[in-house]
Amino acid sequence: MSARPGPADRDGYAVFYNLESRWADNDIYGHINNVAYYAYFDSAVNRFLIEEGGLAPTTDAVVGYVVSSSANYFSPVSYPETLSLGLKILRLGDRSVTWEVGVFASQAAHSCVTGTFTHAFVDRLTGRSAAIPCSIREAIAKHFTPG
Amino acid sequence: MSARPGPADRDGYAVFYNLESRWADNDIYGHINNVAYYAYFDSAVNRFLIEEGGLAPTTDAVVGYVVSSSANYFSPVSYPETLSLGLKILRLGDRSVTWEVGVFASQAAHSCVTGTFTHAFVDRLTGRSAAIPCSIREAIAKHFTPG
Amino acid sequence: MSARPGPADRDGYAVFYNLESRWADNDIYGHINNVAYYAYFDSAVNRFLIEEGGLAPTTDAVVGYVVSSSANYFSPVSYPETLSLGLKILRLGDRSVTWEVGVFASQAAHSCVTGTFTHAFVDRLTGRSAAIPCSIREAIAKHFTPG
Amino acid sequence: MSARPGPADRDGYAVFYNLESRWADNDIYGHINNVAYYAYFDSAVNRFLIEEGGLAPTTDAVVGYVVSSSANYFSPVSYPETLSLGLKILRLGDRSVTWEVGVFASQAAHSCVTGTFTHAFVDRLTGRSAAIPCSIREAIAKHFTPG
Repeated sequence: MSARPGPADRDGYAVFYNLESRWADNDIYGHINNVAYYAYFDSAVNRFLIEEGGLAPTTDAVVGYVVSSSANYFSPVSYPETLSLGLKILRLGDRSVTWEVGVFASQAAHSCVTGTFTHAFVDRLTGRSAAIPCSIREAIAKHFTPG
Repeated sequence: MSARPGPADRDGYAVFYNLESRWADNDIYGHINNVAYYAYFDSAVNRFLIEEGGLAPTTDAVVGYVVSSSANYFSPVSYPETLSLGLKILRLGDRSVTWEVGVFASQAAHSCVTGTFTHAFVDRLTGRSAAIPCSIREAIAKHFTPG
Repeated sequence: MSARPGPADRDGYAVFYNLESRWADNDIYGHINNVAYYAYFDSAVNRFLIEEGGLAPTTDAVVGYVVSSSANYFSPVSYPETLSLGLKILRLGDRSVTWEVGVFASQAAHSCVTGTFTHAFVDRLTGRSAAIPCSIREAIAKHFTPG
Repeated sequence: MSARPGPADRDGYAVFYNLESRWADNDIYGHINNVAYYAYFDSAVNRFLIEEGGLAPTTDAVVGYVVSSSANYFSPVSYPETLSLGLKILRLGDRSVTWEVGVFASQAAHSCVTGTFTHAFVDRLTGRSAAIPCSIREAIAKHFTPG
């Protein structure tokens, strides 16, 4: 097993989105459930693709399918906390992009959860691997500096 | 079957909360799924109970359990819309409160969905019906005028 | 306010589906959250439409959109209970169908939750009201006796 | 980046649970959303802890908190598929256990998704790390052979 990473600070993330937690995110232990964080990652990354990259999920021929994801959980947070989600590019390929998402409680300097999230782009009709659409590549180039 | 109500305007609601939709709220038809709206109702009402009424869900002896709920769906809305949730008191009893929740797309004058949501207050240990806690009753009196 | 209905017994339901509860269905109070039951209704009714009525949600021109739903909650149930969902037709029109769904814990004679769920059929491209597809109408006729 | 693993076959898993997919698991692309699989992992692992290991989530002093998780997605599956979830122990420590969960479509020889899921055991009141409870350790010893 490789060493577990620690909480991240906000400096490494170039784009942030606020996200309201929901009552149903809390589980029986009174904290936001581990599953909910993946819904946050999905929402933040797709918001970027849609709002900055012009992705139209219902009509585009090429869309991003998730091929892998992961999360490390450092400290519990509970609804009704408003969260801040930071985005970073870990790896940008021709046909896939791996994001890191840092989740921060509203006043926190360090992430309570850090995740990774890889989209492979696919032609929806054929299911075949496809190049990242230009508009998305340009949005990434505009907002993120190469790591 | 009684007549189906129509969309509501914003005037009837006294308290509003913003709520970000999420990628997973959209269903296979490309719209926010009917189920997600109930998660919104739950989140808005409990946010009021916690932030204004002092409810502490993990430790309070008396809490609100949902005994009935309903929704009418008027027009489809899709992620990544940011929604506005309006709260209104439909009925305030000694031991229960029925809320109406209006869900508005960000620029919309009329609700896309209107729901009802009844909390009966219960002693968690015994499961018996209990009076609405004073702090919650005071918060309701402060923010809502009797209908 | 009309009188609140009581728990239903199993006799009134003509079709049953089992459904596994999930860890995340439990909320902070340790019971299946009110919202999760609507996901159960949606799953049971659409399973009938797909498996018995031939609905193909990704390709059919006419599909069912939910226009109203409701639930009464009678007794708390918790994950990892396996639930049984009973279906009944409350009202069958030319263009819409209202279902009643009874949710039963595995050994229970009476429903813990009873809900209603109305699908209006719609042409997906135009958004206009449409007749219930023949294959769905036939499946309903085969499995349910007119009430 | 390390090499991405491929689909697993059923032989490596010692315990299996069936799980019904739900309508809301499908996302806008018509497949079960990446997030839903983590709800499946959580449900299968906790079902084992509760039913075989005697975990009582509402009352036990020591419970398992998720500290990391991951998934690789190999092939899309859609509601209303009934899934089979296989459990395997990847690493058993004094205070934590890492599970591998293989998700199989009903007739499939190979997993559509494979995930990992690490529970660290914690004293709920103090938040401090705790030994895995004996009843859980015995259930693991009974059902899984050391890897």
